[in-house]
Amino acid sequence: MIGRTHVHQTTVRFGRTDAAGVIYFAHALDLAHEAYESLLEEAGFPLEVFLRPQSVRLPIIRSEADFRLPMRTGDRLRIEITVSHIGAKSFTTSSRILLAKEGVVAAQVTLYHCCVYPDGHAATDIPEWLRDALS
Amino acid sequence: MIGRTHVHQTTVRFGRTDAAGVIYFAHALDLAHEAYESLLEEAGFPLEVFLRPQSVRLPIIRSEADFRLPMRTGDRLRIEITVSHIGAKSFTTSSRILLAKEGVVAAQVTLYHCCVYPDGHAATDIPEWLRDALS
Amino acid sequence: MIGRTHVHQTTVRFGRTDAAGVIYFAHALDLAHEAYESLLEEAGFPLEVFLRPQSVRLPIIRSEADFRLPMRTGDRLRIEITVSHIGAKSFTTSSRILLAKEGVVAAQVTLYHCCVYPDGHAATDIPEWLRDALS
Amino acid sequence: MIGRTHVHQTTVRFGRTDAAGVIYFAHALDLAHEAYESLLEEAGFPLEVFLRPQSVRLPIIRSEADFRLPMRTGDRLRIEITVSHIGAKSFTTSSRILLAKEGVVAAQVTLYHCCVYPDGHAATDIPEWLRDALS
Repeated sequence: MIGRTHVHQTTVRFGRTDAAGVIYFAHALDLAHEAYESLLEEAGFPLEVFLRPQSVRLPIIRSEADFRLPMRTGDRLRIEITVSHIGAKSFTTSSRILLAKEGVVAAQVTLYHCCVYPDGHAATDIPEWLRDALS
Repeated sequence: MIGRTHVHQTTVRFGRTDAAGVIYFAHALDLAHEAYESLLEEAGFPLEVFLRPQSVRLPIIRSEADFRLPMRTGDRLRIEITVSHIGAKSFTTSSRILLAKEGVVAAQVTLYHCCVYPDGHAATDIPEWLRDALS
Repeated sequence: MIGRTHVHQTTVRFGRTDAAGVIYFAHALDLAHEAYESLLEEAGFPLEVFLRPQSVRLPIIRSEADFRLPMRTGDRLRIEITVSHIGAKSFTTSSRILLAKEGVVAAQVTLYHCCVYPDGHAATDIPEWLRDALS
Repeated sequence: MIGRTHVHQTTVRFGRTDAAGVIYFAHALDLAHEAYESLLEEAGFPLEVFLRPQSVRLPIIRSEADFRLPMRTGDRLRIEITVSHIGAKSFTTSSRILLAKEGVVAAQVTLYHCCVYPDGHAATDIPEWLRDALS
């Protein structure tokens, strides 16, 4: 683990559930991305910075998710996210999604982010200021 | 306007934007539904109450939305929602979605909720306790 | 009704349902937008044309939806969409979403599209070629 | 690889893109789930069978996804999905998502499905009829 843990709190909303009565699996990945956006904000470089025309981009190149417990409408969630690895051109964020009331892990999501040139075609080094902010 | 205004604060997340760079129109309706869920929580009857087997259901039977200003990744939103009408078997919630920083309305969403029997087939009277909670 | 009816066939997928076991209301608007994209393709001007830097844009400025019958996972849908109105700077698409097997209308969605300059700030006349294609 | 390859064709719709102009990563997992639903239909046991009160359930317990190429609004996709593993109580589906025009893989998604009792609490053996259908 590289940086300290950032905590993002949210609630399972109805629109994210499916006909099985629990959160739809792909929406759990959404939650991890929201925690990542929240982490970037706290680090001083919100995601919108990386959407500007001249900025490097940070596409997701891989995701892994483990689902352990169902999450239902109204459940309070506590998402603990850390930057678990920083390489030359990519970094990894790991999120533990806990049911806040029970304090147990409901899902675990790992996202692999690559740094690419503004034109979006080739990987490039993570800028120093971003590396510092994530560490 | 029947009840007082409930305020729900949120942030435009990347997953809700589209290739035009702004919030995807259907996701703005999502935000209004989240504000509605937040209002129900404050009223003491969170949405999950109405998902229980024996409970009346509250399906949406109509929605209207006006989009005035683009909402972008990272924009802080202030959603002001009120129960604008209560009939015998239905009620209406009206949401003004404001860009928090500028204090201007970006979208306005009206949702029409019907009260139906647990089996979901026919409209029924809104129970007194729900009527009281919404007023 | 201005143009002829365009038919778009699709299936209710699990990810579009919610914990009430039916399609989540905002996702029904999604379906109408997909029918609209399909109509634009047939008209020879797919939506991606309007995402190019120099092109006029076609943001949605209003939506209305009526929900009559539940749509469930696996239900085949037949969406009948028409351009129901063309003004100088805006046009309207109306979609009837039918359960294909029963041949009954489950929802009706109206989308109001505005034509704006490439910079996205002010309404402009619908170009002749687009007007012709939509009529 | 256990069963033969099932092909599911679809188009990238605008609502699935994000402000970076390409498909939002979590929506690519959605596409793989749609291909899985299509495979179940072809196998004679559509997903809705597993939503019935007395049926075993098939929750997703893990997902992995690799993103190689951007997918944009209007892109035709060809998803090749196979049941890549069947264990006693779980099975795996692997999807290759190809840009149909170029014939190149844009993403690869693996979903791990577990078979659980109707009450949803413990894993159980995959029924013979389902095992046969998936093989």
